Order: sequence, then structure tokens, then C-alpha cells
Amino acid sequence: MSAAPAAGLEALVFDTFGTLVDWRSSLIDDLTAFGRRNGIDVDWAAFADAWRHAYVPSMDRVRYGERPWASLDTLHGESFDELAERFGFAGRVDDATRRWFVLRWHELRPWPDTVSGLTRLRTRWITGTLSNGGVRLLTDLARFAPLPMDVILSAELFRHYKRDPEVYRGAVELLGTTPERVMLVAAHNDDLLAAKAEGLRTAFIARPTEYGPQQTRNLAADEGVELAARDLNDLARQLGV
Amino acid sequence: MSAAPAAGLEALVFDTFGTLVDWRSSLIDDLTAFGRRNGIDVDWAAFADAWRHAYVPSMDRVRYGERPWASLDTLHGESFDELAERFGFAGRVDDATRRWFVLRWHELRPWPDTVSGLTRLRTRWITGTLSNGGVRLLTDLARFAPLPMDVILSAELFRHYKRDPEVYRGAVELLGTTPERVMLVAAHNDDLLAAKAEGLRTAFIARPTEYGPQQTRNLAADEGVELAARDLNDLARQLGV
Repeated sequence: MSAAPAAGLEALVFDTFGTLVDWRSSLIDDLTAFGRRNGIDVDWAAFADAWRHAYVPSMDRVRYGERPWASLDTLHGESFDELAERFGFAGRVDDATRRWFVLRWHELRPWPDTVSGLTRLRTRWITGTLSNGGVRLLTDLARFAPLPMDVILSAELFRHYKRDPEVYRGAVELLGTTPERVMLVAAHNDDLLAAKAEGLRTAFIARPTEYGPQQTRNLAADEGVELAARDLNDLARQLGV
Repeated sequence: MSAAPAAGLEALVFDTFGTLVDWRSSLIDDLTAFGRRNGIDVDWAAFADAWRHAYVPSMDRVRYGERPWASLDTLHGESFDELAERFGFAGRVDDATRRWFVLRWHELRPWPDTVSGLTRLRTRWITGTLSNGGVRLLTDLARFAPLPMDVILSAELFRHYKRDPEVYRGAVELLGTTPERVMLVAAHNDDLLAAKAEGLRTAFIARPTEYGPQQTRNLAADEGVELAARDLNDLARQLGV
């Protein structure tokens, strides 16, 4: 940890799924309500976890050049199709239903500290997303949650997904500055270490129930991450706002 | 004019210089204060007009492939150098002064209706910039004015300047929708007609003093522009919010 962690800082960019919004309980609530409305009896917590679990391998096929660029909405739609089959309700899914499911990722609830913490941080620094969600997804999410953001930065702008270095470099370039003036805030150590490798500053936010009560990873900051905070208000306090 | 001008609309994107912010009087005020502080006696209104006048030819060299992509900050810096020479104060300009001048374009005052009008429109639709300013410039401007925006869309993202069709198409693609669900709001008919040619909806906002008291162009909407409004609150009213 630095003695003056905010010195020279111009912008804070935030990982979004998990760091700012509680995708898991939001999905479980929405999908459970869907199941009830339509008489579809599925373990929706298991469905939500399986859907999120499909995310990394589906992105990795893009990241490793096995397929051309595809948006997160496209990837979510494809993994939804497989899972609707596996969970036995594919026969009940029409186009509007499929679209509704994909759009669940555009309307996720913030963590309790997200709005107040972002509001505090934004008084001093530019706040931006830096997420694998697309521009429209993040714009919808920022309106819905709401997330007080100055700028929507998305993997889509660079046609590379995190943890590809192009995403961090591209964000710094669009912010018209140098990496050490930008801090990535995230609940995932691998994201932070990939940003650090490009020279960005890093802050870990603990989200110990992002993946549910049995979460075993990302419970604390890895060595090498600059700051570690309990939540966004704690980060604001550590940065002096 | 359509009977239901807001039907199907998802997003409003706004030209920024002139449409949302009063670049001319903001520049004149800032530069006049600079002149007084430094004892530099220049016709700063003439300087501001000449600086803005250099904008289209400098962009056109990019648009017509005579030079590779260059940001608006770069173009503003280059035309500043020429004008500081022409207006006879180049010898008084160091790097920090040059940077201060270029950054004047990041801190421009909104028109009196801008903040209230955007706030109303944003309750119903996504609001975004769609400007030739870069992402950082627009982000700074949105924080400064302030401009209530959900998303910063910039020519820089497409490496094409308006009125190139790539800018309008690119905005629609990032908004994840179709052109007829996006409306460009601008004080300049050529911008609106270029957007219309790509299928976007169009609204003209009258800014009859953008170029000063002698303005002769863009006093009214051209034929073919869908809506014409006195200001952003009038547009909100016409769109039913």
C-alpha cells in the first residue's frame, strides 16, 4: 500500500458483474419469479450458477481466436440455449422468452454500498465501467441500478475481453492519460493483476458472497494488489473522499 | 413531423459543441481573462471565432484521408499554434499555456435549458453524446457542465468524424438497436441530414447565437428534419415528457 494512494489519480474504472452488482441473487429472484409465473419447476440457483459458469469458457473461445468477436449478449444467449435444454424447459422457450432471459443481465441490483460509494468517489475522480458487458448492456445496467458513471468503457469497444491487455490499454487511451493515473476497482484478483501488468493501479473490493454462500475464491486481495477495501465506501475513505 | 414522434424511441444522442454547450462565449470569457492576467491584448472574440473556423478544414484532412486519425485535442492544438502566431502572442506560449488553451474545450458552459432539458429526456430515454470531441474531452465536459448523460459516444470510437456515415452507424451498433430507434439532436442541419441518411430520427434545436450575434446559418430546421424545437425543454414537451 502506498502512503498517498490517491496521488495523481484521474479516473477509477470498475469491473461491474460481481463488483458493483449482485448478479447471482438478482438472477435467482428474477428466474424464480419466471418459474412461478410459468409453472416451470427448476433449481434456479443452480441454473444461475451454471449460466455464470458458462461465461469464462464462452469468452475464452473469443479470446483465443477460436471464433470471431461475439458480444456478451450473444454468448449469454448461446449458453442459455444449452442450459434451457439441460434443465429441461427448452420446449417452453420462445423468442421473447429467450430475449427476456438474456436481458436479465441488463437489470441487476447493486450491492448496498455501490450507489453511495460511487457517488462519493465520483465527486473527485472520473468514474467509468470497465466490463466485459457490451456498451448497451452496461448503459442499461447503469440506468437500472443506478450506477453513477461518467463514462461507459466496455470490452466491446476494443473487441477484446478482459483479461486481454488490449482492454486495459484501450481504457487508458480513451481516458487520454497514462496507466498510473487510472485505478481498476474489482472483486477479482486475476482482473486486477492483469490490469497491474499494464501499469494501472488496483483496488480489491471484497464480495465474499458473489458466488453464493460457499464461495472459496477472491475472499481477499492477492499480494501485489495495491489497495484492499471492504466495500466502495471503505475505498472512498481510504482514498480520502 | 410525425403524429407520435416518440414511438419506438430508445435513445437520444446529442451533438455537443453548440447544441449543448455555448463554446463561443465560454471561450471568449476564459481567453479574455487569460489576456488580462498576462497583459496580452488580443481580440479574443476574433480569436475564438478563428479557432472554431479552423475546425472543419482540420477535420476534413482526416475525413478525406489526407492524414491518419488525429484526435480533436490534437487538431485544436495544431490550429492554436497557427493562431497564436497569427494573433502575435506565440512568443508568450509555453507548454502549460498551450495545454491550458486546448483544455478550454473540455470546460464549456451549457445553454440555460441544457441541464433541465437533458434531465427530463433522460427520465424516459437513454441519453448519449454523439460528438467529434474525444471520449476524455466529452467526459470532462459532461462532468463540468454538467451534462446528464448515460453514455459517451464519440467520433474517436469509430476513428471517423461526423458527417462520415460510420459515426451514425457506429452509434446505433453500440446502442444495440436499429437506426429508427435512435434520434440525433443537433443545432446543425448538415449533421442531422447525414444522420437521417443512415436512418436515424432527427431533431433540430435552435441555437441562433452559437456563432455570435451575426449568425446567418442554422437559424431554422431544414426540410427533411423530423422535429424542430426552441430548446431542449421544448423538445421534451414535444416528445411527451
